[in-house]
Amino acid sequence: MSNPNEDYFATRRTIRRYADRPVSDELLENILERAMRAPTCGNMQLYSVVVNRDPEMKKLIAPTHFNQPTVAGCSALLTICADFNRFTRWCKLSDADPGFDNPLSFLNAATDAIIYAQQIVTIAEMEGLGTCWLGTVLYNADKIAEILELPDLTIPVACLTVGWPAEEPPLVERLPLKAVMHKEKYRKDSDEEIIELFKAKDDFPDNAKYIAESGKKTLAQVFCDCRYPRSLNEDFSRSFAETLRKKGFLK
Amino acid sequence: MSNPNEDYFATRRTIRRYADRPVSDELLENILERAMRAPTCGNMQLYSVVVNRDPEMKKLIAPTHFNQPTVAGCSALLTICADFNRFTRWCKLSDADPGFDNPLSFLNAATDAIIYAQQIVTIAEMEGLGTCWLGTVLYNADKIAEILELPDLTIPVACLTVGWPAEEPPLVERLPLKAVMHKEKYRKDSDEEIIELFKAKDDFPDNAKYIAESGKKTLAQVFCDCRYPRSLNEDFSRSFAETLRKKGFLK
Repeated sequence: MSNPNEDYFATRRTIRRYADRPVSDELLENILERAMRAPTCGNMQLYSVVVNRDPEMKKLIAPTHFNQPTVAGCSALLTICADFNRFTRWCKLSDADPGFDNPLSFLNAATDAIIYAQQIVTIAEMEGLGTCWLGTVLYNADKIAEILELPDLTIPVACLTVGWPAEEPPLVERLPLKAVMHKEKYRKDSDEEIIELFKAKDDFPDNAKYIAESGKKTLAQVFCDCRYPRSLNEDFSRSFAETLRKKGFLK
Repeated sequence: MSNPNEDYFATRRTIRRYADRPVSDELLENILERAMRAPTCGNMQLYSVVVNRDPEMKKLIAPTHFNQPTVAGCSALLTICADFNRFTRWCKLSDADPGFDNPLSFLNAATDAIIYAQQIVTIAEMEGLGTCWLGTVLYNADKIAEILELPDLTIPVACLTVGWPAEEPPLVERLPLKAVMHKEKYRKDSDEEIIELFKAKDDFPDNAKYIAESGKKTLAQVFCDCRYPRSLNEDFSRSFAETLRKKGFLK
């Protein structure tokens, strides 16, 4: 086992600001190719990645990610899609009758795409690059699909910015392993135990700043009222369902 | 860039058969802890992992994975869940009003859980362990949730067997990078181009064996008629939707 202070995995962090130096096509393609050895459902490789480097394309895409500066500032923007289009076309061309136009098949493809995206993150970071995973991709999947001209049975589910790091942010807090790990069955924690498990989060110095900035009383209120409010979650749920329908996964 | 013949990422493969030697609790917990530094939505860590080592528990769970021998034969069976239960409980205990009982929040949590699972795969394999990702977890999520006593807002989305390798399988085929990578926009391939992209798959020697064993004419027919037939995909879609409803993600 590695020394936790030197281990890449134990110390990895998201990088949002990048140097001007571009990531070469050769390196990027090498990473995308090696990442294809990640696990994939039945070896079907139900994913695609759209690489955006053109500043005009990034300008078009940026609003779908709420204009987070990391989009304009990255060397490459990677949109990773759950993709049953390619496989379905191959099946039809091979005298077979594909039945992948349903929600479970979407989940299979989304799983493949997220595994592939995380493998890209790991390989890129081990090559010295920085990456930032943009969860916003799920909120505006329909608009992103339009800009990237995604075909049927293809929906963006992960987005990464990639570049040479121009910052070295401190490690943020994580829950203790006990919060996440259960032995044999899911543990039934008491309210007091839940509070104890989140103590590191409630006590993390930077979080006091967010609470003050938002004019809230607790960190949980920042999450529920400001960052991920119910009304937005419900709006985005409806628009994602509509994207699933439009892209042919609800037949 | 690494030598592709020696690089872990370029040569990784799934291991299904394990030696009798157990994976120590210390090593397993070290892996699960380091994996928690993987990207996570808003640093909410919307995942849990249930570790099963007890042979009786594995016997109960095995049928939900269609009795694949890797379940009984592994040192640890890890079921990784999309989990908004813990976070929601903390919010309620912190005077906040959580709104995570919707499909988009499920997708956020599922993304977190799949990223975490893939990070476990990578760290475990770099420690010399073998892992096998069981896609079957999505098919019987309801039964797994019952056996593991998962609470509301918690659904299994990834399952891994882990152990010391007792086999060294050959590398299987993958599509060429070109099939997966698109520049600036999604490329519109012709039928001939699709056939060309899948050539390595159609020509892979082991696949001829599967076609013969199934009495089919093409590899695509093996996928569509035997491995992932429409009727099963649709049945599993319905049962997964029912699990989403039962676990409170369709409010």
